[in-house]
Amino acid sequence: MSNDLNLEDFLPYRLAILSHSVSHSIATVYYDRFDLSIPEWRVIAIVGRFPGLSAVEVAERTVMDKVAVSRAVTKLIKNGRIDRQFADADRRRSILNLSEKGLALHNEVAPFAMKMEADLLADLTEDEVEVLDTVIDKLYAKAQLFTAPEPESLPQKR
Amino acid sequence: MSNDLNLEDFLPYRLAILSHSVSHSIATVYYDRFDLSIPEWRVIAIVGRFPGLSAVEVAERTVMDKVAVSRAVTKLIKNGRIDRQFADADRRRSILNLSEKGLALHNEVAPFAMKMEADLLADLTEDEVEVLDTVIDKLYAKAQLFTAPEPESLPQKR
Repeated sequence: MSNDLNLEDFLPYRLAILSHSVSHSIATVYYDRFDLSIPEWRVIAIVGRFPGLSAVEVAERTVMDKVAVSRAVTKLIKNGRIDRQFADADRRRSILNLSEKGLALHNEVAPFAMKMEADLLADLTEDEVEVLDTVIDKLYAKAQLFTAPEPESLPQKR
Repeated sequence: MSNDLNLEDFLPYRLAILSHSVSHSIATVYYDRFDLSIPEWRVIAIVGRFPGLSAVEVAERTVMDKVAVSRAVTKLIKNGRIDRQFADADRRRSILNLSEKGLALHNEVAPFAMKMEADLLADLTEDEVEVLDTVIDKLYAKAQLFTAPEPESLPQKR
């Protein structure tokens, strides 16, 4: 195998750059218009879609840095956009839901987010959109397999 | 516009999940075999590809949380995998390069990373790989445009 890693062509790196760029471009606008950071919007979207998740489950689904998510949840609670309840008397498990204010915000940002998504996809052909969809599913499924790889297929431990 | 945001179908979210999953699946193996975290490997790869960048420039190119990158750089310097020099007498600009040890590690991990990439792509057809490549470039270019959007195309500031 060659040692010549051309980073600009390396798929994991290209996906990281693309994902960051897409989230960041949309977030620039969220931030200006709705006073929402990327993690805050992602928390709002996830709690809107899956009401009653715990804070830990929300953090898992955002696939973002745990500290950033925790900071976002704290700010959203403080701003009255998220309601937190505790499932146990000993407060071990918190349950998050959108407040009335949070739901109104969600319903204002959601169509805007979908418009941005449509604009992003506008230059793609129908075929490209379809292939992109298939490819994302295939790559995701394959990556899940790798998370617990067969030991014999790997190089020796150093 | 509809308010019904189906998060699982929302492209920015799908890209974030995919990118995280791909990086995480590969990193599981890096970590076990080479004692490298995701940010550490990304720093090694970037400094290997672009020697002599400043720490700030490396952080920009990793598109990761700045604190995580800074922690990774500190650990890599401590482990003797990265050499840091200062361009100015007042130490305002640091220049990073792979040490001999870092270069050896890079050259050991790089073919392994490329093998993982090839395995990830193995189930895609030639056409799918080609379309994926085109689509990543198109979406990235479009996202860059959005970062400075035309004010008149946006909803009113609240």
